[in-house]
Amino acid sequence: MSETAVNMQAPLTERNGNNVRWITLDREKQRNPLSLHMLNSLIDALERANEDPAVRAIVIAANGPVFSAGHDLREMSQREGESRDSQLQRMRLILDTCSRMMLGIVNSPKAIIACVQGTATAAGCQLVSACDLAIAVETASFCTPGVNMGGFCTTPLVGIGRNVHRKHAMAMALTGDSFSAEDAVRFGLINECVPVDQLVERTAALAERIAAKSAQGIRHGKADFYRQVDMPIEDAFAYANDAMVRAMTSPDAEEGKAAFFEKRPPVWGDA
Amino acid sequence: MSETAVNMQAPLTERNGNNVRWITLDREKQRNPLSLHMLNSLIDALERANEDPAVRAIVIAANGPVFSAGHDLREMSQREGESRDSQLQRMRLILDTCSRMMLGIVNSPKAIIACVQGTATAAGCQLVSACDLAIAVETASFCTPGVNMGGFCTTPLVGIGRNVHRKHAMAMALTGDSFSAEDAVRFGLINECVPVDQLVERTAALAERIAAKSAQGIRHGKADFYRQVDMPIEDAFAYANDAMVRAMTSPDAEEGKAAFFEKRPPVWGDA
Amino acid sequence: MSETAVNMQAPLTERNGNNVRWITLDREKQRNPLSLHMLNSLIDALERANEDPAVRAIVIAANGPVFSAGHDLREMSQREGESRDSQLQRMRLILDTCSRMMLGIVNSPKAIIACVQGTATAAGCQLVSACDLAIAVETASFCTPGVNMGGFCTTPLVGIGRNVHRKHAMAMALTGDSFSAEDAVRFGLINECVPVDQLVERTAALAERIAAKSAQGIRHGKADFYRQVDMPIEDAFAYANDAMVRAMTSPDAEEGKAAFFEKRPPVWGDA
Repeated sequence: MSETAVNMQAPLTERNGNNVRWITLDREKQRNPLSLHMLNSLIDALERANEDPAVRAIVIAANGPVFSAGHDLREMSQREGESRDSQLQRMRLILDTCSRMMLGIVNSPKAIIACVQGTATAAGCQLVSACDLAIAVETASFCTPGVNMGGFCTTPLVGIGRNVHRKHAMAMALTGDSFSAEDAVRFGLINECVPVDQLVERTAALAERIAAKSAQGIRHGKADFYRQVDMPIEDAFAYANDAMVRAMTSPDAEEGKAAFFEKRPPVWGDA
Repeated sequence: MSETAVNMQAPLTERNGNNVRWITLDREKQRNPLSLHMLNSLIDALERANEDPAVRAIVIAANGPVFSAGHDLREMSQREGESRDSQLQRMRLILDTCSRMMLGIVNSPKAIIACVQGTATAAGCQLVSACDLAIAVETASFCTPGVNMGGFCTTPLVGIGRNVHRKHAMAMALTGDSFSAEDAVRFGLINECVPVDQLVERTAALAERIAAKSAQGIRHGKADFYRQVDMPIEDAFAYANDAMVRAMTSPDAEEGKAAFFEKRPPVWGDA
Repeated sequence: MSETAVNMQAPLTERNGNNVRWITLDREKQRNPLSLHMLNSLIDALERANEDPAVRAIVIAANGPVFSAGHDLREMSQREGESRDSQLQRMRLILDTCSRMMLGIVNSPKAIIACVQGTATAAGCQLVSACDLAIAVETASFCTPGVNMGGFCTTPLVGIGRNVHRKHAMAMALTGDSFSAEDAVRFGLINECVPVDQLVERTAALAERIAAKSAQGIRHGKADFYRQVDMPIEDAFAYANDAMVRAMTSPDAEEGKAAFFEKRPPVWGDA
C-alpha cells in the first residue's frame, strides 16, 4: 500500500506552513472522537513532527463544529458475545494510549498549540489542557460531561486540574455543564478567544512567531518547566540553575548573544 | 431526651429539599462561630448527610448577616484559674476538630456547596474554601484577619492557599482586609456571586442539578480528583486510568450508556 | 574606606519611612541589571532590613523606566582570553547568588512588596514573582525574553510558575512577548495596577498598613504559609495546627486578644 493511501485512511491530516506542522483531526461526522485509531494516529503524527527538523512549532486543530467529543463510547462498550475481561482490557488499552498521547504533548520538544474551533468535550477538553497554549473561537465550549453518563471525567481532570483552580475544575466536573470560551479564558484553560473568522490566522501568527525562536531553547526550556514546576522550590531552583547554565551556553544561546551585540537577526540551529 | 429536643439545641439546622441536604449554621447573634459545639455538630450533620441515601448533594448555608466569623476567640482564651497546659489542650482540640471537619468536607462522598449570604471570616472563610463549590451574594465579604489580632490565619490559609494564587492568598493574610465577592470570584475562592435575592434559588438550582447526576460517579470522581491533583502527572494518569476503568464499568455507568443509546433518561443507583 | 563611601557605590539605595524599608534599585542607565554586585547588595540590604527592629515591612522599588532588565548578559559572557570553565563558574555563581536572593525574599521574616514602576524582564520579572505582594503602574510590562536570545527563561519560570497558571507561564516563556500590567493582574503575577502618579503613595499605604500589624504574627505566618502550601493537605493541616497553637499563644496574640476585648488599639512587640 502506498504511503498516500495510508494517509488517506488516517483520521487526521498533516500539513506544513512556515515551519509549523498543523495536525488536524478529520473525523468531522463522528465529532473527532479520540478512538484508539485517532490516538495512535496522533501519537505517530506528533512523533513525525518531533523528528522533522523543518517543524519548529505544532498546532493541533480540528475540522467541523466539534473540536473533539472525547473517547468513542461505542468503542468502550462491551461487544456482543465479548467477555467482561476482554472489554476491560480494551478500555484499559484506550485509556493508557490516551494518557501516552497526552504525556506525549507535554513531553514533546516543540511548543504545541491547541486551535479550538468548536466544542471540546471530556478527553477532547483534556487535549486542550495538555497543550502548552490554546486559542479558541468565541463560540467554542468546554465540557466534562462524564457525570451525565453515570461516571466522572476523572482522567480529563488530570489535565484540567493542572490548568485551573480547584473550584473551576470541580464546577466543570460536577455539573457537566458547557462552559463558554470566555469562562475558559477566565479559568486559565485557554489563553485567549478570538472571533470565528480570525482563529486560523491568529493561531498561525502565534505559531509562526514561536517557530522563529530557537528550537533548542524551547526544547530544553519546555521540558525543564514541566519538570521543575512540581518540585519543592529549593529543588526547583537547583534544578533550574543547572539547566540555565546549559541553556545559556548552548550554540543557539551563543548565536543569540552574538546577534544581540552585533545588532543582527540571529540564525538558529535546527529543530 | 427526645431527638427533637437534641436537635433544637444544635447550633445548626438540617433540612431536605429535592435530594439536597441543607445544613444551616444557626447562631446568628454570635456570628455563627466555629465553636467546638458547632464543629462537632457540623461533623455529625455531614456524616448523617453522607449516610442518607436520599441525600445526593449538600449545601452549607448560614443565617444572619455573617456566614461565619471563624473560631470563638473566647473559647480559645485562658480561663480564670486555668493552667496554660489546659488552655493549650483545649485550643489544640478545637483546631484538630476544625481540620477534621474541613477534611470531612473534602472527603465527603457527596458534592458540597457553600452558600454564602454574608461575611466569611478566618476559619469561616476556610469553610468556604473547603467546599467543592461556592456561591455568594454580591455583598458578601471574605477576610482572614488573624494578622489584626497579633497572629496570622495560618490554618485558614491551608484551604485558601489551595484555592487561589499565592499573591492573592498573601494579600488576604498580610492585610487582614475584607475582600469583595467580586474579588473572591476573580481569585477563584468562589465560583460566582449573585444578587442577594437570588442566592437561595440559584444555590438550590445548582445543588439539584448535581443531585440529579449519578451519586456513584460523584462519590468516586470527587475522591479521585482530590487524590490525583497533588501527584506528579505520570502517577496521576496511572491512578486516574485505574479509577476510570472502574468508573466506566460501574452499574451507573452501564445505566448511563444504555440510557444514552436508548435515548431515555437514566435511572441512577442510590447515593 | 568609610561606610558612607561604600554606600555611595552601592547599586541600590535604602531609606526608611514609617517602619517601612524602601530598597530601591539605582542603576537606571544600565536598566537595573541583577548583576552579581546588585544581587549581593540586595542580599545584604534584605538582611539589614530583616534584622532592624524598626523595619516592619519591606518594599523593593527601582529608579528609571525599567524595574529590572534581569541578569547582565555581558557579565555572563566569556571574556577575552578566559577559559570556558572560568566563564561557567562565574555564570553558576551569578545564578546561585540570584536564587539565594530570591529565596531570601521568600524566607524573609517580613512582608516584601514589589513596587514596579516600569518594565520587569527575565530575572527582573522573577524578582516581582518572588515578593509576597506586587503593585505596578498601569504602563508597566512583564516579559521573559530568554527565548528571543536562543535560550529560555528557565529560572524566572521557577518563580513565575508558582504565581500563575501553566498556560499563562508558557505564554510568557514561549513567546517572549511583553505582557501588560493588566495581563499581569489577570494572571495573578501582581496584585493590582495603579495610575503612574499613584504608585508610590499606594505602595506606601499598603506597606504601612502591613507594618502596623504584629511583626511576630507575620514572621511565623509567612514562613508557615510557604512551607505548608507544597505539602499534601493532611500534612499541611497537621503542620498548620501546630503553628496555629504557637501563633495564638504568642505575646502579640495575647496582646491582640486583650486589646480586642478591652476595645483599645494593640501595642505589638518588636519586629
